[in-house]
Amino acid sequence: MRKFLEPESVALIGVPRSTGVGAYNNLEILLRFGYQGEIYPVNPKAEEICGIRCFSSVLEIPKIVDLAVIAVGRDRVPAVFRDCCEKGIKRVVIISQGFADGDEKGKRLQEELTERVKEAGVRIIGPNTMGVYNVHASFTTGFVEHYKPENPDPVCMVAQTGVYQVGTTVFSPNGFAKAIDLGNACDLDIVDVLEYLEDDPQTKVIAVHMEGIKRGRKFIEVARRVMRKKPVIILKTGRSTLGAKAALSHTGSLVGDIQVFDAAFKKAGVTKVRTNSELQDAIRAFVNFPPMKGNRIAIITATGAIGIIATDACED
Amino acid sequence: MRKFLEPESVALIGVPRSTGVGAYNNLEILLRFGYQGEIYPVNPKAEEICGIRCFSSVLEIPKIVDLAVIAVGRDRVPAVFRDCCEKGIKRVVIISQGFADGDEKGKRLQEELTERVKEAGVRIIGPNTMGVYNVHASFTTGFVEHYKPENPDPVCMVAQTGVYQVGTTVFSPNGFAKAIDLGNACDLDIVDVLEYLEDDPQTKVIAVHMEGIKRGRKFIEVARRVMRKKPVIILKTGRSTLGAKAALSHTGSLVGDIQVFDAAFKKAGVTKVRTNSELQDAIRAFVNFPPMKGNRIAIITATGAIGIIATDACED
Repeated sequence: MRKFLEPESVALIGVPRSTGVGAYNNLEILLRFGYQGEIYPVNPKAEEICGIRCFSSVLEIPKIVDLAVIAVGRDRVPAVFRDCCEKGIKRVVIISQGFADGDEKGKRLQEELTERVKEAGVRIIGPNTMGVYNVHASFTTGFVEHYKPENPDPVCMVAQTGVYQVGTTVFSPNGFAKAIDLGNACDLDIVDVLEYLEDDPQTKVIAVHMEGIKRGRKFIEVARRVMRKKPVIILKTGRSTLGAKAALSHTGSLVGDIQVFDAAFKKAGVTKVRTNSELQDAIRAFVNFPPMKGNRIAIITATGAIGIIATDACED
Repeated sequence: MRKFLEPESVALIGVPRSTGVGAYNNLEILLRFGYQGEIYPVNPKAEEICGIRCFSSVLEIPKIVDLAVIAVGRDRVPAVFRDCCEKGIKRVVIISQGFADGDEKGKRLQEELTERVKEAGVRIIGPNTMGVYNVHASFTTGFVEHYKPENPDPVCMVAQTGVYQVGTTVFSPNGFAKAIDLGNACDLDIVDVLEYLEDDPQTKVIAVHMEGIKRGRKFIEVARRVMRKKPVIILKTGRSTLGAKAALSHTGSLVGDIQVFDAAFKKAGVTKVRTNSELQDAIRAFVNFPPMKGNRIAIITATGAIGIIATDACED
């Protein structure tokens, strides 16, 4: 998992030839992010992009890169992914969408990817993802221009969307140091990420946006263990009936009954939030304040009314 | 009620001689607010304050003012209030605290005030209040320096606290045009205020902070009627067990069971909010958007995750 966030070499498969606004060129964005590792763009129609030599296939790259990022049309993903496996690449981010988030065919294609993972010993983040960013390694797989925090908060945002990466400073005062978009989570999931973050010295606070989960029991076990070392904040979405339907078409997630999740979160001891503003508040609190030593709270206020509102909030 | 917010003459009883930061001089604040009406400060120890002639008693003022504002120590309030009644003043704001919000004696003193209201035909806002402000009349009874919005939103904030007056632009983008702090609401209450605001052309949105209420049935009836003309947003505080205890000592309000309030709000058709940030959002929405024509909502989003969160919020 660690090398997903700090690869020494990366193959970018399906880099567009155009650059600038509207091109969604992940090579251009990666260069601007200041990445110092080796980059191997793959595009059979280009000699070079952004001044960097292109390869027509991942098989032609003269080394086994730490990470491959696939951003080609859905129907071409299986062949490209096969090439990655054949080449011996162990980590793949699949940006492309139209899998379990799409139609029946997409669902089948995603199942084939998951099958292959078991055979080939490769690990996947995605599909349908922005991938990851890591300010400490100046690395991003993002295809949408996003701000690189200068002195980021020691927070890792784990989500099933890239929107928190794009809006990093909206959600944490100085932006997240690391962010992982699990997308449809066909292979690597929140459990894998928590296990990595548990001992990651650069991460002091873990914030999670979750639509669905497959390994519920394992999640409770791991979250409970991680919680003893650092706070875990969870925003579970698709709580409502219609929200659940929307989540199914967004990341193909079966969101499950919110009561079951609430019970699981309680058992795991994580901090549950209901809205993005609660998420912002919780992140800010955990970043700025030391852990509480007990379970008592004193409210100091210049106005009675706000004291009452704060008291209500404590019981909420 | 209207003349509470736009009096042509006002007696300020208990104006301190000192001015500046920490003096809480309501005369100084009123002058700075740009009030153009007649002001009669009452302070037996001063000849003049802020360049305005003082009277030693309200009885000495050569006319019957539209409004008297009492800000003397609790134990001196009954005598001063009696003077106001004797003088024939019909409207009194009692800033002083230590009534139902204080001890047993305070509770008794407040009951005596309420008794007198019935005999003398005078109406009271308070005690334990910041009183009112009205940008359109450049009038304020506030004793804490507060911002005067230049182009205020057409919102009247009715509260049992002055904190919304002090933080006016926090809660409405351009600040409230009018604000009323009912304090302990020993006489005038939310029902009276709603009846006034119903036909007030300067008020398009009514925001309410409520700790307790006495006339529940009447409130439902009036709120329901007002709702047909303009939106009413309510933040009911003291929802929690401890919050209820705190409210009792803040404004002496018996907050009642939140389920009963929820049912009443539903029956009245008002917009219920649970937190100050929901209050901010609701005010902003009602100020900026026209009323919805139906009960269907479309969500347009550049990112699936936020669409799901918005869908959850719609069902909340």
